[in-house]
Amino acid sequence: MFVIGERINGMFDDVKRAIQEHDPAPIQELARRQVAGGANALDINVGPASKDKLGTMQWLVEVSQEAVDVPLCLDTTNAEVMRAGLEACEGNAIINSTTGEEERMAAILPLAAEFNCPLIGLTIDAEGVPRDADGRMEIALRLVSACMEQGISISDLYIDAVILPVNALQQVPQEVLMTIRMCKALSDPPPNTIIGLSNVSQGTVYRELLNRTCLVMALANGLDAAIVDPLDDKLMEAAIAAEVLLNRNIYCDDFIKAYRK
Amino acid sequence: MFVIGERINGMFDDVKRAIQEHDPAPIQELARRQVAGGANALDINVGPASKDKLGTMQWLVEVSQEAVDVPLCLDTTNAEVMRAGLEACEGNAIINSTTGEEERMAAILPLAAEFNCPLIGLTIDAEGVPRDADGRMEIALRLVSACMEQGISISDLYIDAVILPVNALQQVPQEVLMTIRMCKALSDPPPNTIIGLSNVSQGTVYRELLNRTCLVMALANGLDAAIVDPLDDKLMEAAIAAEVLLNRNIYCDDFIKAYRK
Repeated sequence: MFVIGERINGMFDDVKRAIQEHDPAPIQELARRQVAGGANALDINVGPASKDKLGTMQWLVEVSQEAVDVPLCLDTTNAEVMRAGLEACEGNAIINSTTGEEERMAAILPLAAEFNCPLIGLTIDAEGVPRDADGRMEIALRLVSACMEQGISISDLYIDAVILPVNALQQVPQEVLMTIRMCKALSDPPPNTIIGLSNVSQGTVYRELLNRTCLVMALANGLDAAIVDPLDDKLMEAAIAAEVLLNRNIYCDDFIKAYRK
Repeated sequence: MFVIGERINGMFDDVKRAIQEHDPAPIQELARRQVAGGANALDINVGPASKDKLGTMQWLVEVSQEAVDVPLCLDTTNAEVMRAGLEACEGNAIINSTTGEEERMAAILPLAAEFNCPLIGLTIDAEGVPRDADGRMEIALRLVSACMEQGISISDLYIDAVILPVNALQQVPQEVLMTIRMCKALSDPPPNTIIGLSNVSQGTVYRELLNRTCLVMALANGLDAAIVDPLDDKLMEAAIAAEVLLNRNIYCDDFIKAYRK
């Protein structure tokens, strides 16, 4: 599983404070700890409160890449902020995200082509998140077609089937699992699949249990990547065990130690 | 998930000792604790060491049903021991198990028909456990056909795709997951699916982590029942969370408490 660390996000109090105080230390500490915890890339989200979103994105990119050298996953709905982040990235970046709306695809896909970087496509359109897996697949197909038209390799596309809080919409997780499975038959090569995991447990009491259980279920359905908290040890151990059971990680007696950095 | 408690098995030292000393207390304590932990039925296995397998089976059945009133799942390869156990059962029993071998089916299936009880069918034949899901499905189909011929309802058949230790045969778990999924297309109504979970982690260091991860993966592929240790709290919590995420258990804020007995 390709692990994208979710913690550098202005919606978290520690990150929000660091942004306000223009203090790189907490950001860099989070960057290092997430990579040590198993992150292959780091999500960068300025958060809802930031006033200078463009400047904050550039600053977060700069201070993060001073600390670690994994790809940064630029998480914004604003194409200008995305461009500013992409220009600030010295190494590889990942675009997070476009939806399947024509307008959003027209703004974001050319950036993926220009900067030659992977792209997360959410199965959302003008009407919002579809009820079921079939609705999600329609949008996924639209994203695949649009990428093909722009010359973006489908192996650079990550379909995010948009998991929602289980306490609000209990039918959603199984539709997401089905979408993950169905994506593998969408094209050849198929797009990758990803989930923004923590959303499933928003507002619930057993957040960590729901997160790790949902992640293992998604891996059992073929998930390729996830945006998660790599500081959650039990989550990472569950993911490692799942990949051992799926024969994606070679078994050894202390497989937890072997696959933790 | 239909939970069958695995602990009354003569391969465990405490049960072996109770059998040798003819002491019902440890057996009855295990029966009560497993039911309190969430078991819907209890597996009864005299174990490899017992000399009077028939008498021991009868005794285990008698003392267990003095303590609890869930169905007993009689776990023996010997048709005479199975009949003795079935005759000792006052309530419902489950037959565990037949393989797909003609000889075994000829000995065991008539007992399922005569006692009108559910039956576990292992995807094993004279050549052993097949390499892959297709081989398992061939045997599953043979079991379905044989049940139909004997007038056994397919909703009383539980296909066990035979999980093996992941440290020895790392490719097996994914074949078992695929078999669980494929079984649902085998007939209408389809057979149930079951796994004898703990086998996956035999000889490994992280037994509990592998067990609960494997169980969640199997549930995500449609598993109906499992033979597990209901005294393993984290395993049971993972199963409950998985069923909440699959919309099989209704969500409530304290779903762990709500679904634990």
